[in-house]
Amino acid sequence: MEVFYYKDITEGIVALPVEESKHILKVLRKVPGDSILITDGHGKLYDVEIVEGGRQCIVNSKFSSVRESGRNYYLHLAVAPTKMMERYEWLVEKCMEIGIDELTPILCEHSERKIIKEERLANIAVSAMKQSKNLYLPKINPLTPFKEFIKRPIEGNKCIGYCESTSKDYYFNKITDGINTMLIGPEGDFSKEELNLAFENGYKGVSLGNTILRVETAAIVACNMVAVKNFNIE
Amino acid sequence: MEVFYYKDITEGIVALPVEESKHILKVLRKVPGDSILITDGHGKLYDVEIVEGGRQCIVNSKFSSVRESGRNYYLHLAVAPTKMMERYEWLVEKCMEIGIDELTPILCEHSERKIIKEERLANIAVSAMKQSKNLYLPKINPLTPFKEFIKRPIEGNKCIGYCESTSKDYYFNKITDGINTMLIGPEGDFSKEELNLAFENGYKGVSLGNTILRVETAAIVACNMVAVKNFNIE
Repeated sequence: MEVFYYKDITEGIVALPVEESKHILKVLRKVPGDSILITDGHGKLYDVEIVEGGRQCIVNSKFSSVRESGRNYYLHLAVAPTKMMERYEWLVEKCMEIGIDELTPILCEHSERKIIKEERLANIAVSAMKQSKNLYLPKINPLTPFKEFIKRPIEGNKCIGYCESTSKDYYFNKITDGINTMLIGPEGDFSKEELNLAFENGYKGVSLGNTILRVETAAIVACNMVAVKNFNIE
Repeated sequence: MEVFYYKDITEGIVALPVEESKHILKVLRKVPGDSILITDGHGKLYDVEIVEGGRQCIVNSKFSSVRESGRNYYLHLAVAPTKMMERYEWLVEKCMEIGIDELTPILCEHSERKIIKEERLANIAVSAMKQSKNLYLPKINPLTPFKEFIKRPIEGNKCIGYCESTSKDYYFNKITDGINTMLIGPEGDFSKEELNLAFENGYKGVSLGNTILRVETAAIVACNMVAVKNFNIE
């Protein structure tokens, strides 16, 4: 059954937001009496019966289950926006399917793209969450300057992926459980200064393999490595 | 330096194909005297000097180096085409960046798309090869009916990924070195009959994680798992 999203879903009688209501009633032609599933984006799933249509769909919501993420890690990717926004949107969809907890677009010295549409990324994450039945919606932060981000006190395992061919550890071997933060730069890679700043602030330089990956590929590969390293069957 | 591709590149005086010549001379404005790199798509890289322009660019080619793939495995993905061809093209680009040896589009019972443009996929693979400096071009086979493919005598480790929630092993734990063949079905997944045929023919049922991945995501995740499992620093 298709899964819907409403962050404030609780037990009892609930009026759904206009957008979601439109989708349920107009697009999917659901009518009073029909049952649907709604997640709060934090792993909780509700079994709800449509009580009343209209601009805001009224539902009677019963708690159904909690989907354990089956994860003992927290992944925060900080990735420079790609020149083509479409590639960044792919990144969000794919990481969402695989599993990510937080995404921060970072503005780097070599970034050509200096604006992003956060709301659009958030919508893509929601669609991917519904489609993948991954009931955990990641936090998508606003575009943040690299130099601001890098100085933040962040707990756990901090790594930065870059192309410059110095001897680096393979990222997969550096992943820990708990909090993992991974930085990925723009098409022009991080600048020397940015790399040094990262090292000074406790980030380990890592490699994602022997080939040169596009920005969005690097993010998806890193995301998947963390998922594989920490995989537990539910 | 940008890498070009010509499958028949050898040492000595060589006339490049018209298309590649056009790209080198017209798009990149290279002129006689300039040097470029050309790969044969089998790991060999040549350092060539442009001797003469024109419809077919004449070059003087010197062997430069062999890029060891750094891999002790062979990955053959057999993936049903996606409804939206764009998603399949993206799959080809990403798997090419990460590393794949052979791709067979398979026509399944639930496949909505029944045609693919092989040539277009081949061109995407070439672009991705140049961009990622992965000098190994995969073999892209024509669209093959599932029932024909499944009966082929294939050596090595054979797995099939599917959604139906039966207890399955995690793919990463099943990957071996040597030849790995992995099957991924269409949006509607494999049919019961197809799954049984796969099992009868020695394919192990595997899971790619706890969420439902899109076709192209499943292919990229599988490709990356094989790369991680067999990773050797060059």
